[in-house]
Amino acid sequence: MEKVTTKRLALYTGRTHPALAEEVATHLNIEIGHDNLVEFANGEVRCSFGESVRGTDVFVMQTHYGVDDRSVNDSIMEHLIMIDAASRASAKRITAVCPFYGYARQDRKAAGREPITARLVADMFKAAGAKRMISIDLHSGQIQGFFDGPVDHLTAMPVLEQYVREHATEPVIVSPDAGRIKVAERMAQHLGDCGADLAFIYKRRPKGTTNVAEAAEVMGDVAGRTCVLTDDMIDTGGTIVAAAELLKKRGAKEVWAMATHGLLSGPAVDRLKNAPIERLVLTNSLPLPSEKQLPNVEILSVAPLIAEALGAVFDDTSVSDIFDGENLA
Amino acid sequence: MEKVTTKRLALYTGRTHPALAEEVATHLNIEIGHDNLVEFANGEVRCSFGESVRGTDVFVMQTHYGVDDRSVNDSIMEHLIMIDAASRASAKRITAVCPFYGYARQDRKAAGREPITARLVADMFKAAGAKRMISIDLHSGQIQGFFDGPVDHLTAMPVLEQYVREHATEPVIVSPDAGRIKVAERMAQHLGDCGADLAFIYKRRPKGTTNVAEAAEVMGDVAGRTCVLTDDMIDTGGTIVAAAELLKKRGAKEVWAMATHGLLSGPAVDRLKNAPIERLVLTNSLPLPSEKQLPNVEILSVAPLIAEALGAVFDDTSVSDIFDGENLA
Amino acid sequence: MEKVTTKRLALYTGRTHPALAEEVATHLNIEIGHDNLVEFANGEVRCSFGESVRGTDVFVMQTHYGVDDRSVNDSIMEHLIMIDAASRASAKRITAVCPFYGYARQDRKAAGREPITARLVADMFKAAGAKRMISIDLHSGQIQGFFDGPVDHLTAMPVLEQYVREHATEPVIVSPDAGRIKVAERMAQHLGDCGADLAFIYKRRPKGTTNVAEAAEVMGDVAGRTCVLTDDMIDTGGTIVAAAELLKKRGAKEVWAMATHGLLSGPAVDRLKNAPIERLVLTNSLPLPSEKQLPNVEILSVAPLIAEALGAVFDDTSVSDIFDGENLA
Amino acid sequence: MEKVTTKRLALYTGRTHPALAEEVATHLNIEIGHDNLVEFANGEVRCSFGESVRGTDVFVMQTHYGVDDRSVNDSIMEHLIMIDAASRASAKRITAVCPFYGYARQDRKAAGREPITARLVADMFKAAGAKRMISIDLHSGQIQGFFDGPVDHLTAMPVLEQYVREHATEPVIVSPDAGRIKVAERMAQHLGDCGADLAFIYKRRPKGTTNVAEAAEVMGDVAGRTCVLTDDMIDTGGTIVAAAELLKKRGAKEVWAMATHGLLSGPAVDRLKNAPIERLVLTNSLPLPSEKQLPNVEILSVAPLIAEALGAVFDDTSVSDIFDGENLA
Amino acid sequence: MEKVTTKRLALYTGRTHPALAEEVATHLNIEIGHDNLVEFANGEVRCSFGESVRGTDVFVMQTHYGVDDRSVNDSIMEHLIMIDAASRASAKRITAVCPFYGYARQDRKAAGREPITARLVADMFKAAGAKRMISIDLHSGQIQGFFDGPVDHLTAMPVLEQYVREHATEPVIVSPDAGRIKVAERMAQHLGDCGADLAFIYKRRPKGTTNVAEAAEVMGDVAGRTCVLTDDMIDTGGTIVAAAELLKKRGAKEVWAMATHGLLSGPAVDRLKNAPIERLVLTNSLPLPSEKQLPNVEILSVAPLIAEALGAVFDDTSVSDIFDGENLA
Amino acid sequence: MEKVTTKRLALYTGRTHPALAEEVATHLNIEIGHDNLVEFANGEVRCSFGESVRGTDVFVMQTHYGVDDRSVNDSIMEHLIMIDAASRASAKRITAVCPFYGYARQDRKAAGREPITARLVADMFKAAGAKRMISIDLHSGQIQGFFDGPVDHLTAMPVLEQYVREHATEPVIVSPDAGRIKVAERMAQHLGDCGADLAFIYKRRPKGTTNVAEAAEVMGDVAGRTCVLTDDMIDTGGTIVAAAELLKKRGAKEVWAMATHGLLSGPAVDRLKNAPIERLVLTNSLPLPSEKQLPNVEILSVAPLIAEALGAVFDDTSVSDIFDGENLA
Repeated sequence: MEKVTTKRLALYTGRTHPALAEEVATHLNIEIGHDNLVEFANGEVRCSFGESVRGTDVFVMQTHYGVDDRSVNDSIMEHLIMIDAASRASAKRITAVCPFYGYARQDRKAAGREPITARLVADMFKAAGAKRMISIDLHSGQIQGFFDGPVDHLTAMPVLEQYVREHATEPVIVSPDAGRIKVAERMAQHLGDCGADLAFIYKRRPKGTTNVAEAAEVMGDVAGRTCVLTDDMIDTGGTIVAAAELLKKRGAKEVWAMATHGLLSGPAVDRLKNAPIERLVLTNSLPLPSEKQLPNVEILSVAPLIAEALGAVFDDTSVSDIFDGENLA
Repeated sequence: MEKVTTKRLALYTGRTHPALAEEVATHLNIEIGHDNLVEFANGEVRCSFGESVRGTDVFVMQTHYGVDDRSVNDSIMEHLIMIDAASRASAKRITAVCPFYGYARQDRKAAGREPITARLVADMFKAAGAKRMISIDLHSGQIQGFFDGPVDHLTAMPVLEQYVREHATEPVIVSPDAGRIKVAERMAQHLGDCGADLAFIYKRRPKGTTNVAEAAEVMGDVAGRTCVLTDDMIDTGGTIVAAAELLKKRGAKEVWAMATHGLLSGPAVDRLKNAPIERLVLTNSLPLPSEKQLPNVEILSVAPLIAEALGAVFDDTSVSDIFDGENLA
Repeated sequence: MEKVTTKRLALYTGRTHPALAEEVATHLNIEIGHDNLVEFANGEVRCSFGESVRGTDVFVMQTHYGVDDRSVNDSIMEHLIMIDAASRASAKRITAVCPFYGYARQDRKAAGREPITARLVADMFKAAGAKRMISIDLHSGQIQGFFDGPVDHLTAMPVLEQYVREHATEPVIVSPDAGRIKVAERMAQHLGDCGADLAFIYKRRPKGTTNVAEAAEVMGDVAGRTCVLTDDMIDTGGTIVAAAELLKKRGAKEVWAMATHGLLSGPAVDRLKNAPIERLVLTNSLPLPSEKQLPNVEILSVAPLIAEALGAVFDDTSVSDIFDGENLA
Repeated sequence: MEKVTTKRLALYTGRTHPALAEEVATHLNIEIGHDNLVEFANGEVRCSFGESVRGTDVFVMQTHYGVDDRSVNDSIMEHLIMIDAASRASAKRITAVCPFYGYARQDRKAAGREPITARLVADMFKAAGAKRMISIDLHSGQIQGFFDGPVDHLTAMPVLEQYVREHATEPVIVSPDAGRIKVAERMAQHLGDCGADLAFIYKRRPKGTTNVAEAAEVMGDVAGRTCVLTDDMIDTGGTIVAAAELLKKRGAKEVWAMATHGLLSGPAVDRLKNAPIERLVLTNSLPLPSEKQLPNVEILSVAPLIAEALGAVFDDTSVSDIFDGENLA
Repeated sequence: MEKVTTKRLALYTGRTHPALAEEVATHLNIEIGHDNLVEFANGEVRCSFGESVRGTDVFVMQTHYGVDDRSVNDSIMEHLIMIDAASRASAKRITAVCPFYGYARQDRKAAGREPITARLVADMFKAAGAKRMISIDLHSGQIQGFFDGPVDHLTAMPVLEQYVREHATEPVIVSPDAGRIKVAERMAQHLGDCGADLAFIYKRRPKGTTNVAEAAEVMGDVAGRTCVLTDDMIDTGGTIVAAAELLKKRGAKEVWAMATHGLLSGPAVDRLKNAPIERLVLTNSLPLPSEKQLPNVEILSVAPLIAEALGAVFDDTSVSDIFDGENLA
Repeated sequence: MEKVTTKRLALYTGRTHPALAEEVATHLNIEIGHDNLVEFANGEVRCSFGESVRGTDVFVMQTHYGVDDRSVNDSIMEHLIMIDAASRASAKRITAVCPFYGYARQDRKAAGREPITARLVADMFKAAGAKRMISIDLHSGQIQGFFDGPVDHLTAMPVLEQYVREHATEPVIVSPDAGRIKVAERMAQHLGDCGADLAFIYKRRPKGTTNVAEAAEVMGDVAGRTCVLTDDMIDTGGTIVAAAELLKKRGAKEVWAMATHGLLSGPAVDRLKNAPIERLVLTNSLPLPSEKQLPNVEILSVAPLIAEALGAVFDDTSVSDIFDGENLA
């Protein structure tokens, strides 16, 4: 018995950020599948696909984030359970799509007797049956090596740069600390056409002292300029707000804060409301619940990016081409 | 270089039910280790052991349950992260101690396109580095076969039986539905010395009808007797409360409800408060938060049981002997 | 070099029950492949496929049973060896088809220091190279979770029910012991249209006694009725024959015994011959050697069921649809 | 809690060859453990250890052979089930002791679409939980590489050589075919002290012919000598008997046949009874059922060898030293 | 979204023997892909594919050999790194093509405390992401069982035989030692049509002596004949040259040496230059650097063989058919 | 049979840097084991331990580096082969000690279709049988997460700092590029007691230009100071030499270059000889072949560090304590 082989794509989404999945589906001109997610009274999640996924190329999308009364761990477990269900329902190949990858910051032992949770999460997705992974602006590029399969590591940098290009004149790209200088450096290069400059904030102690606390200082000319602080994520906002204040003190005309992932956890909203930041530019890799709305925030969409990557994975065409071959660090 | 080998035991606990771990430690005459569990602002859990566990026989205890603002999934992830930390800190052997094992009810595909989450959880514990597992009264005995290593499956049945033996006269052990008759049967046998009898509740439809709904009915003599309803867990309390009402209608003198795991989720507390149940007997395999307190509840401790098993695992002596060789179904 | 991909199906069978495979092949309108099974003089089995299986979707079928002078273990080893041969011959995907899954009853540790052989068997099939499994009426649904891949768990229940529907009037579906009540309950519901009723057999001890042996008793009205005892398998026949005798004593007009898997081991044939059983209804999931023929046996075929599932797996269409989405416990 | 670590050894045996295990136990001055092996009526094997093996260094011994009404596959499955039981009963380390390793001859694909069953068997032992393996005179040394763990490959050659040394004068060691010349060569070297010589049997076709069948011929001086045919196993006896007849035709004074493993399958006993073989020297690596008794057979014991290896493994002393560092091919 | 599936083939080659890959590509009428292999200053190899391999059936070819200033280990590591790159670039399936498989001679523990490096190499290819392997004339057929996936084991024997058939009259096929007699035997059978005969060289010690060194001797009629020494590989040439000298001493008219793999390591070139060997026949499974050129060497191509196998693997047609179903030992 | 368990330590070394292993052994007061490393003529490495390692805690040490005519890949393969030999010789636990871990810089995909060789190397060590790893100053801390087992990540920073403390007055710690600022920052903090200051070199483009090349510039006061350039490794020396020249141009009194790993590949020696660097401070994590000797180099020993870690691993005491709990990034 011999037949021509066909392939089918199906997209499912967890409950953390369905709006993003809807947007991706619209770009791909498909419908999102039914996964019938419910919770038992004790909080255990249950999933049951509404249609056959046998032999299908299944993409299960969930950004790892706590929203409503569901925590980031609930979000990860829901993602795993959906993948397990697809695997036991004979899906041909399962791709875990994690716009924001949880526990990415725990990617090495910073001190003794700590876990490397970013590796543990990768192993859990493998155990559940994911064969591939798609993520955006991982906290460190090495996380790709934690997963035992191909990872398509996308970057929102072109989207963010395009915003700057369209709205700013001769901006200064500013790294808020020593660890992110490389990314700011690259962005400044890409924006050379609109007169971009580079600056960064570092900590120094007055020469020869030992007990005096280190103080933050700006490197680069920022006076009278539009300063664009750039980072991979804004969590509690402490670093970025302190940086903004310093930049203003050093004469910045405007301060913009820009990041792929807007976690805005704990005190972040309050801090940002009161900070001297003219524009806050984030992507929709994470949902922005109503209680986290800020007056001056701009949300750029990563849905076209994800849709293009999904299409390329399904069609077996190049994902690198989407980014002109350049990968994020 | 040759030395005599020694072995060390260490016990750590997650934040779901530290009181139980304290009680176990007291029985073992040891101190609980410091795991310095904290959360990042976005809800990610972080663990860092306060002392070296290199070469140590580590037991990491967490009952899988949502308490305070932490969900059952938070509880499982915390458990896994602690095990990963112990594994990367060179523990000699790690035993996951789960008094209540999460997702145990999702142990098979009851319908198409469902996950088998109980197997997924077992695989996650293996991925994190657990080599052995200890649990109490698993929802089905087959879950032992999901874990790729030895499982010590304890039972609280002797503890519960002892309570009945001490407080009831000629009780009737009642299974609240068809699925649990075997357990009730065994308990009645064990309590033969105090005149125990067996009964159960089943559903039947009047002979020859098709559309008439099935109605619950009691099998066995319960009139004028102390009826002890027995189950592995009480979740929302629906089944047990309906059973109690029926027993009273059939003339039961008193109705007691008894289970190893008292989840008491959602409407359970309200239901139980208004139910004709004279005594509710549970174990402390799960914490009983203050808002779930009930006037007529008795909490029996499984700490001696767990302590004995931990000691036997550490000492390489028999765990079966604790239960006279009889295992739970 | 780019080509359109095609897919091919091939079906091979071990020597335990070739007639069933032939019947399945006929339904699929294909030929069974040549596997050239032989034995070395010391009993080692050797397999050598007679045609290329490179890139083929291979189904290897063997029911786990001892027949002629080959034991159940011979049957399992032969199955594994055939799968290994297909794997090393570059089959694209291998599905182990086990109408009866061996060692299914050893699915948990009923006592200490016992194996969980049902899990071991699942791991052996994985080691040999099976990526998927198809089986019928597994002893417990949890066995699906033992195999590290998708399991299509079929049920012969609709076939058996159809027989009852066609031949009985107002039957009483009887569970022969407490452990199978749920299955009998479901069958009675399905047969509500032909006036089916439910009953079951349980063990009880006279109130207040301890040393008196438990006696079996019938629950439900059986007098003057056609009683259909139902179980997943009939092995030595002890339980079912005792049940039949009791039903007759309680006034049953006729007793039928019905099961998916007719092992009929050891004393079964003698017992059944002398039992007050008017009809014995089995499926052909296992072969019925001539020495096990009984005058009143009816063999229903599961070949259409298996053929439909094989076709769906090959075509990537839904298997659940075959059963209207309802799975066996 | 800190304690000095102790270690315990336990030896269990399957039912294929308990006498050999008894002899090994006597050498080690220990008792064999109770494994309570029984069979279900359908032939499924069940094992249940009679004492705790928690933390124990467990050796499970079974030679892979069909005896009584149990086949070689029964023998392998029983071995695996015992190992699984020990593994789930928390044994510290499990060593599979296979005096004769089943399916060793299927160690490569001699033709297309064949299995490599010797590797499959190795993977099955790993899946069951065996961490190490001990075997004697494997059919090819490469089988050591099939098992994913240490293999102690023992050889009975010193035992066999000692017999020749004591009973023969200026023997000729004869290889029965081209594949075994290396082993015969080494034995002849070892027996140089008692005047041993080498010969072998090969097949040749008269020069320049194509259709004439090849004929066996002897290389080396055998006339008037005691010829000792040596092989790793004697299965159906065809090769060895033909060789013996040829040697006699070429003037051998006496012909002895010698092998580690005496399978004596199918026609072997009849052939050997009628063959011109003065002595048949085998080891007790396999049992010799009463129906396979031959008048002129000598059975040498490998029990001291196995006992010495077990002791060395348990004591962490060198196994190589038992053989003066020389391994079998 | 549903599409017809197509498949693409891509061939990449390491730097050890690009000429062979070019020849294979020509036979397949394809272009070799760009892998941009470079070395860091410290010798670490880096690979970067020049075009997308997503969803492609990738064949990565490298013969394991030291050439120029790159060692055999460099060659193996380069092979692994290329496979890892293809795997992380989402290739659909990766086949490692190793015309000569490195470390094949270390396929068992010849003495205690040795590695089994041939198994280690197989495990390394699996870890890198190879799903299948193609190799030619492996040192032992059992190496197929070391790899955890299908191995297509090709043989150059037909190519070598064809050469003899065309150039020699009534040749004598000679095995240079006891270990290779079976291969020579088979070749002589295949060449029966051109009057081939068989002979071999063995070592013997004069009857009854112990301390006298063994001397090589020829078995078979070689005087006045064209003797074709045949082996799987010629490494340092010691064995083959000694054999050639002996054959000449015994009256051989001509001596030819023939092997699939011409390693020609260390003293080989000098030895062969001075040896009484009229023709040296090798294949191009390994490159022949200019400093290893010899006047009388004939290089036969295995490129058609590899191309045919690659094509069959890609097309899912039979590889066995290329060899009429006969496998090498 | 019950005995007290003892443990033994054995240390073996590859051929890349035996002097370091000797020094470690001296600190531990033990002898290095005999591994009898040799090469076959074709470059294949062979290992054979000279004494039993059964039940021993084996440490196999090799720094990954090309020395003499052996490449870095030869060094890695030799390391793996030794570990495989120890594993098959029944070592109890094997720790791979890699003072310099090869391919650490390929720890993520910097562009599409690249391998992540640092993960591949980790998987290869796991495949060979290493259960733990010890390394010094890994290129990125995330590499710990690549290995599926505990990694003890040591740092030579205290050794280097102690040298500065003893020989420099009010030094300026200089990071040679943006990527290493964090390490320099920490070192400056540690050396606060001797008046250390911080500076670094970055690249900037004049404000508002696009096509003008970026130029390096120094941040921090360096005029008249002793500048200590610090990095994890010095490979070709390009970065460090350019930095030194710039520092001198900016008025530095002295320039020292300091790194844990002195690869000194390719043009490094020539560059460093001609550079304005007063002192070059390296550790002996890598050997310094005679042709790489430089007049002004200081080699500090990491042997005490490794010895202390080995001792702690063997004794199951804390390794973190060696570094006061502080881990490297």
